[in-house]
Amino acid sequence: MSAAAAKPILYSYFRSSCSWRVRIALALKGISYDLVPVNLIKDGGQQFSAEYKALNPMQQVPALKIDGITISQSLAIINYLEETHPNPRLLPQDPKKRAQVRMIADHIVSGIQPLQNLSVLKQMGEKKMEWAQNCITSGFQALEQILQHTAGRYCVGDEVSMADLCLAPQVANAERFKVDMGPYPTITRINKALLELEAFKISHPSRQPDTPAELRA
Amino acid sequence: MSAAAAKPILYSYFRSSCSWRVRIALALKGISYDLVPVNLIKDGGQQFSAEYKALNPMQQVPALKIDGITISQSLAIINYLEETHPNPRLLPQDPKKRAQVRMIADHIVSGIQPLQNLSVLKQMGEKKMEWAQNCITSGFQALEQILQHTAGRYCVGDEVSMADLCLAPQVANAERFKVDMGPYPTITRINKALLELEAFKISHPSRQPDTPAELRA
Repeated sequence: MSAAAAKPILYSYFRSSCSWRVRIALALKGISYDLVPVNLIKDGGQQFSAEYKALNPMQQVPALKIDGITISQSLAIINYLEETHPNPRLLPQDPKKRAQVRMIADHIVSGIQPLQNLSVLKQMGEKKMEWAQNCITSGFQALEQILQHTAGRYCVGDEVSMADLCLAPQVANAERFKVDMGPYPTITRINKALLELEAFKISHPSRQPDTPAELRA
Repeated sequence: MSAAAAKPILYSYFRSSCSWRVRIALALKGISYDLVPVNLIKDGGQQFSAEYKALNPMQQVPALKIDGITISQSLAIINYLEETHPNPRLLPQDPKKRAQVRMIADHIVSGIQPLQNLSVLKQMGEKKMEWAQNCITSGFQALEQILQHTAGRYCVGDEVSMADLCLAPQVANAERFKVDMGPYPTITRINKALLELEAFKISHPSRQPDTPAELRA
């Protein structure tokens, strides 16, 4: 079997919000794949193994082996899937709406998540919880304001887009870090609508092959 | 004059690496624009003013007013420019090469820069320099490995791409934080080639309307 015809392999950790973004995209587009769990905690972090580093020098999840190449960075993966499997689309047709989708996705992917990811929190010691809450809170304040202008049923209008693939996993992180969601009614409403969709359900951290028994849905 | 016909307005800070990415894109595509400086230091940070917050709730630069909308997040802006002003292109035609460009750009934009930006460093006190150096060093170790597979004259092959628009400003940050560039010969070589290009020169932090006299080229 040629590399191009092989089933894609997703390197994923059940709780990684960046991995969840990609799992949603794969589910929405109906792409079947094999999942290889990479435990970010166990053995001092399996992403640091020589084997994984050879696959992804960034030593992070997710990474996707597909069509003979390995792609890392969640939005780079999602954009590749969008270009090679355009249906259903995850970017609107109108360039201005596309810009809104990308602005919201980048705000989460560059402006919020990196500041509260595992490698940063490790260095925060006792201040870990407070640090994470502050990053998410200030990011969500801006996001709530932006969504008041762009949202329909979902982040931008009534179609699920890349922005939504970033939103639901970030809200799950907020809940883990016990952020008070009271001040963010629009984020909360959109998240609830997203979690009703089958693609978000089957890709959920509570339903992964590597989800520990006590956290299973 | 209609909003669509008005000259774009870029809100920028001379030293912001994210602003420089967008200035390069505007220069490469030959888009003329007005620049409004937002001083991230003066007056406790002009990005926190009520006026600027109304324009960009994220309270960051860059932001671009164009075609009647305001876009923030550097890559969202650059993608919009790419879609509305496709020449010269900043993404290769081949989807696999596009994925490489996006992976490298996202690695810098999400994986390195947010960890060493002004708002994080403010909270680091005396450890500021060491923190920034560590973030950039570990990011550049991965980037150097990736570029050994993807680079030609520039980050991916021989055409300037979105990845290069992120690389040169990140190297400038590394130099500001006195990172030893010795271990990164590929990054160093590409950066040098980029800085020879007119679009990188005229958009450089040392040649902006808000560059202080003592830092001018």
